[in-house]
Amino acid sequence: MYKAPVEDIAFTLNHVAGLKGAIADGRLGDLSDDLVDAILLEAGRFASDEMAPLGPVGDKEGARLVDGKVIVPTGWDKLYQDWAAGGWNSLTSDPDFGGQGLPHMLNVAALEMWNGGSMGFTLGPTLTMGAVDALSAHGSDALKAQYLPKMVSGEWMATMNLTEPHAGSDLGVMKSRAERRDDGTYRIFGQKIYITWGEHDVTENIIHLVLARLPDAPAGTRGISLFLVPKFLLNADGTLGARNDLHCHSLEHKLGIHGSPTCTMIYGDGKFGNEPGAIGYLIGEENKGLACMFTMMNNARLAVGMQGVAICEAATQKAVQYAKDRTQGKAPGWSGSGMSPIIEHPDVARMLVTMKALTQGSRAICYSCAHATDLSHHGDADEARHWAERAALLTPIAKSFATDAGVDVASLGIQVHGGMGFIEETGAARLWRDSRIAPIYEGTNGIQAADLVTRKLPLSNGDHVRGFIAELKEIAEQVRASNLEAFGETAARLSSSLADLEETTEWLLARLAAGDSASALAGATPYQRLFGLALTGIYLAKGALAEEDHGREQRLSLCRFTAENLIAETAALKDRVINGAASLQAARAVLA
Amino acid sequence: MYKAPVEDIAFTLNHVAGLKGAIADGRLGDLSDDLVDAILLEAGRFASDEMAPLGPVGDKEGARLVDGKVIVPTGWDKLYQDWAAGGWNSLTSDPDFGGQGLPHMLNVAALEMWNGGSMGFTLGPTLTMGAVDALSAHGSDALKAQYLPKMVSGEWMATMNLTEPHAGSDLGVMKSRAERRDDGTYRIFGQKIYITWGEHDVTENIIHLVLARLPDAPAGTRGISLFLVPKFLLNADGTLGARNDLHCHSLEHKLGIHGSPTCTMIYGDGKFGNEPGAIGYLIGEENKGLACMFTMMNNARLAVGMQGVAICEAATQKAVQYAKDRTQGKAPGWSGSGMSPIIEHPDVARMLVTMKALTQGSRAICYSCAHATDLSHHGDADEARHWAERAALLTPIAKSFATDAGVDVASLGIQVHGGMGFIEETGAARLWRDSRIAPIYEGTNGIQAADLVTRKLPLSNGDHVRGFIAELKEIAEQVRASNLEAFGETAARLSSSLADLEETTEWLLARLAAGDSASALAGATPYQRLFGLALTGIYLAKGALAEEDHGREQRLSLCRFTAENLIAETAALKDRVINGAASLQAARAVLA
Repeated sequence: MYKAPVEDIAFTLNHVAGLKGAIADGRLGDLSDDLVDAILLEAGRFASDEMAPLGPVGDKEGARLVDGKVIVPTGWDKLYQDWAAGGWNSLTSDPDFGGQGLPHMLNVAALEMWNGGSMGFTLGPTLTMGAVDALSAHGSDALKAQYLPKMVSGEWMATMNLTEPHAGSDLGVMKSRAERRDDGTYRIFGQKIYITWGEHDVTENIIHLVLARLPDAPAGTRGISLFLVPKFLLNADGTLGARNDLHCHSLEHKLGIHGSPTCTMIYGDGKFGNEPGAIGYLIGEENKGLACMFTMMNNARLAVGMQGVAICEAATQKAVQYAKDRTQGKAPGWSGSGMSPIIEHPDVARMLVTMKALTQGSRAICYSCAHATDLSHHGDADEARHWAERAALLTPIAKSFATDAGVDVASLGIQVHGGMGFIEETGAARLWRDSRIAPIYEGTNGIQAADLVTRKLPLSNGDHVRGFIAELKEIAEQVRASNLEAFGETAARLSSSLADLEETTEWLLARLAAGDSASALAGATPYQRLFGLALTGIYLAKGALAEEDHGREQRLSLCRFTAENLIAETAALKDRVINGAASLQAARAVLA
Repeated sequence: MYKAPVEDIAFTLNHVAGLKGAIADGRLGDLSDDLVDAILLEAGRFASDEMAPLGPVGDKEGARLVDGKVIVPTGWDKLYQDWAAGGWNSLTSDPDFGGQGLPHMLNVAALEMWNGGSMGFTLGPTLTMGAVDALSAHGSDALKAQYLPKMVSGEWMATMNLTEPHAGSDLGVMKSRAERRDDGTYRIFGQKIYITWGEHDVTENIIHLVLARLPDAPAGTRGISLFLVPKFLLNADGTLGARNDLHCHSLEHKLGIHGSPTCTMIYGDGKFGNEPGAIGYLIGEENKGLACMFTMMNNARLAVGMQGVAICEAATQKAVQYAKDRTQGKAPGWSGSGMSPIIEHPDVARMLVTMKALTQGSRAICYSCAHATDLSHHGDADEARHWAERAALLTPIAKSFATDAGVDVASLGIQVHGGMGFIEETGAARLWRDSRIAPIYEGTNGIQAADLVTRKLPLSNGDHVRGFIAELKEIAEQVRASNLEAFGETAARLSSSLADLEETTEWLLARLAAGDSASALAGATPYQRLFGLALTGIYLAKGALAEEDHGREQRLSLCRFTAENLIAETAALKDRVINGAASLQAARAVLA
């Protein structure tokens, strides 16, 4: 059973991502180390004791649509009430609306634990948090006053309605439409697919944020508006009124996250109300809906990254435990009686240590991204911009590297279990199935890579990424200067991977400057992985360099393994980016 | 829908694996090119038209145990009868017992197509073929006369019973027991798990091959005997007699291959018959059961490799089709109206071409392995030994590389589909789920790697693998000498990967010679992948060099892509083998 790794999480937050330093510098208000510890400990307890037992239940039962009602898995309703009552929905929200105003770093750490307990369950709250972000940033005061407090407290859950059957990555071709009404509200019509937690009875009301197009809107993404469309309209006194004209048409039959209802939603077909059209309230300005989406996009992408980290952690825990218990054959050097625990076999140990390394690397990248987001809300304009750029740069890497790692680590987890891994009751297969959606939604990892290369590298004319690489080199230099024997060849390996990163980055910037985006895009995915691997090595080294006695030996040896076994791949990735595009272009003929 | 790639298969068989040459040299009797073509064409038709439509049915319905009876998916019973009636069960079997005595190469090609149609279905016949091999090689004349003809024709299916709950990879600790009876038969008692197609009504009888231990057997693997244990005993006239004392206790709830009944079998608990104990007939000698297993092991492992190839092919076909149909966004350079087909996006093209390359590389490795097996049955003793060693060397690589590729390619296939990939109805998820068992059974890929390094490299004191690498170098040299511009940097890349292979091979042989198997085993898995990647590059080049006009341009460009994008990973893998063991040993501390 998953046990939230509170100690690892706290260490990574404090000593790798920089939470401790930010607190010490007074950048996070009156937040104290003690409060951080208390929050993490209690989140860990809830995730381990309350959520984790219900994760497999959700997978087995799934969400079901019965007579128009969505039934969530046994125990999930109470779990949600308990979770919301614990205040977990509102860690980062605005205190003016009942939120706790805590740093994103803490929420991201908590999200890792919730997802470790149950990814399917946690998807609901994750979407609510995104809607809270969007409404907080762009809603009118009146709309915020009406809806935010109950969304912040978790009394009402919320959804994001973007995708349509023909419009996934390209929102510009969306067809859902909105009509203006005389009273300043709108009527919404259309079909949306893949709507996570789109319908259920867990909360009394569900607040849908829906993208749609006005009749006179410009074509493409500049003609999309964002609307708040509640399942139940509110009376003047804030109590629930009439049912709005929207409903869940069907649930998807998915590979994983079975407990999370993935709905096809119909707006405005006249099923409810006197005249067709779901009543909606504009968020922000007309035709500026996509800008409202972008507000929450970075946080949402990082939240998906946390799903990857959580799957890594859960899969690793399960595999390590199995490998200690299961005996089979005799490992080289095994002197015990009978068969060895399979953890003694070098090949099994290699899988498990690789799983550990990818877990900790993914975690460090994601938490560092959250740290940048937090710091972007503080300091002067230059400083805020610096950290906003850092968060923007790290977001696609965090999302993609962690979610790819989730799939890879869960797959290794199955392999460690041997035949048992293929049997559903073991639970290793569930983690692998659940993991597979994360590289896809909130922008596929290919779209993340395109974003990284074409929009993030050019920030500050490339000087932001250059400055970041220079910082990373300093850490490699600290490893060298430490002269710690336990680091082995780490310093040289880190330097080599950073040289690969630097050379590839400059090559891509030059291609973009030359207007050759096709070549840059052809190498975007290998580049994204290169960046993630290089960061994994550096962040593990940063942790190993931290002056903390407890666990340092383990951190040093894991860092060395990572440096000497995993990150040499950056050379091949560099080669693929710089020298691979021409042959890719030529080879398109084989797809004809 | 899967369409058997008959042309690619024929090309790879003839021009890469060497079928055409072997026919021309007269090594395969009176087999003609025309007969080969006819067999492949008809197998392709059956796989595409008859099997492929029933693959998803099997996944959805699954095999079910109802009142002690195993119900196979709708249509599978007739499918099996039609398939067996087509003579497909007996391609390679001994003509004395009704077989067709054709080369393994043809059966392996057919297996690829059957698995492409439905892996869950094909598992049944695959196990029967393994049992036919074992009985043919080791059974007494009387036993063969009684059982082989109907097993060869497919009138009876057969199973292999090795695994027990505590004994998967390590058969030496098996507990099933056999007791001698006065009439020369035995009574078998025990429980076996993961028995593929262990029970069903598709054939009137099921012939179980069961490993068990005699009361006075030596401990470990030298005390295991092999028994033939039919579901129904035979009367003197060969008709079906009494029900034997064995039954299916339960079916596993698996991640994939749902249509294939995976049974827990109970032998000898007295459920059937007058006295407890399933009647069994010894195959081979007492306590030599494992040797009998080894006879069929190479073929069985290659058969699993074909599952990997088949999944690669099916996933690639599906993804290419989807990427041509689905439009989204505008790819760089897209000049059409509206959105581009996603195949135009460089990142999607990279995924698809990578899938093609891994498919063709896996296919070539597997067919080359079958070619070696075929040639090991011909020529003088030295020649036979040479090819037997080649088959032995290639088997673990074929099994592991192709099955790992199956998982990776199916995962890319999901990614190409975006959100649709996560929806079960699309079918991409099914391929990924099915693929995941292949790296596990018939010896996990980690066990294949240990076999490759510790048993196959030392063949002929290392001279066999050295000679093989020398042959591979000749192909790289031919690429260089061809001076074809379309090869790009292929020659240099091939040479570089072969240098990595050679250096790593020598390092491993030196470690083994020094008695340091722990270090050798620590790098076994990366070495196995290194070997597979190097072979992929070389075999694609061999195909591109073949003097065939049709499709040559495509083969050249795919080879170049592979050389310039995929095989540079060999350098990192070499590094991991040679320099990674010490840090792995140190990092075991993190698993404590």
